[in-house]
Amino acid sequence: MTPESTQSQIRRILDRWADAVRAKDSKALTANFAPDVVVFDLIDPLKYDGLEALKQRAAQWLSAFQGPVSYETEDLRITTGDDVAFCHSLNHVKGTTVKGKIDMRWRATVCFQKIDGQWTVTHEHSSVPFNMETGQASLDLRT
Amino acid sequence: MTPESTQSQIRRILDRWADAVRAKDSKALTANFAPDVVVFDLIDPLKYDGLEALKQRAAQWLSAFQGPVSYETEDLRITTGDDVAFCHSLNHVKGTTVKGKIDMRWRATVCFQKIDGQWTVTHEHSSVPFNMETGQASLDLRT
Repeated sequence: MTPESTQSQIRRILDRWADAVRAKDSKALTANFAPDVVVFDLIDPLKYDGLEALKQRAAQWLSAFQGPVSYETEDLRITTGDDVAFCHSLNHVKGTTVKGKIDMRWRATVCFQKIDGQWTVTHEHSSVPFNMETGQASLDLRT
Repeated sequence: MTPESTQSQIRRILDRWADAVRAKDSKALTANFAPDVVVFDLIDPLKYDGLEALKQRAAQWLSAFQGPVSYETEDLRITTGDDVAFCHSLNHVKGTTVKGKIDMRWRATVCFQKIDGQWTVTHEHSSVPFNMETGQASLDLRT
């Protein structure tokens, strides 16, 4: 297994997730996660412990969209080892919810371990920064 | 090099950073980072590119504190491979700035590569989640 092919395997996982967001398929979006994954998400609470909590959160998030969802992974950098890998990117989503139009970017870090021969996410961290003056989350940042 | 000793090496780096925060020593806090590190920080902007930007940010952050700073790393989980590793934790800081008392936790993910035999941070992601109703960053979360 060369570093290049590990890169490709991880890129394929990310591509499948992007398709899952566009298809609003929370089951496909939560494939490749470990049962004991620890997720730091965009919104409260401080963390989600375990795959079941992540599945509920993914289903809730995708069900909020009305009509088509656009989703792109920008500035992706993947770092691979033999059994541990990580990647980071800026993820850009556009769509419409009951609250109005959304056009936002967030920072995503995804950490993988090779478990039983499969690259598996054991940690994910998604966030936006906040404005120190107002305390507001920055939902309209541009790259 | 056994996984245990890699764990110890990374734990030592984290311990040195904790000492650096308490000593308000931004030089020690920014040791062990790669020149091309990509940092997603608590506050705007969306990302910091490179070690120089990180050094400025660390110096600015530490200089904001008046008097003693308390700093603890909680819920730490370290995952190690031969040349790639990552860890995540909740970091708890208490102190006083001109704006008043701070007692907050944030989520931290630190990603390492072994470069020239040294564990080196090539990516770091620190954040708090936000409250979806108010759009405010959650600065008072408890574990």
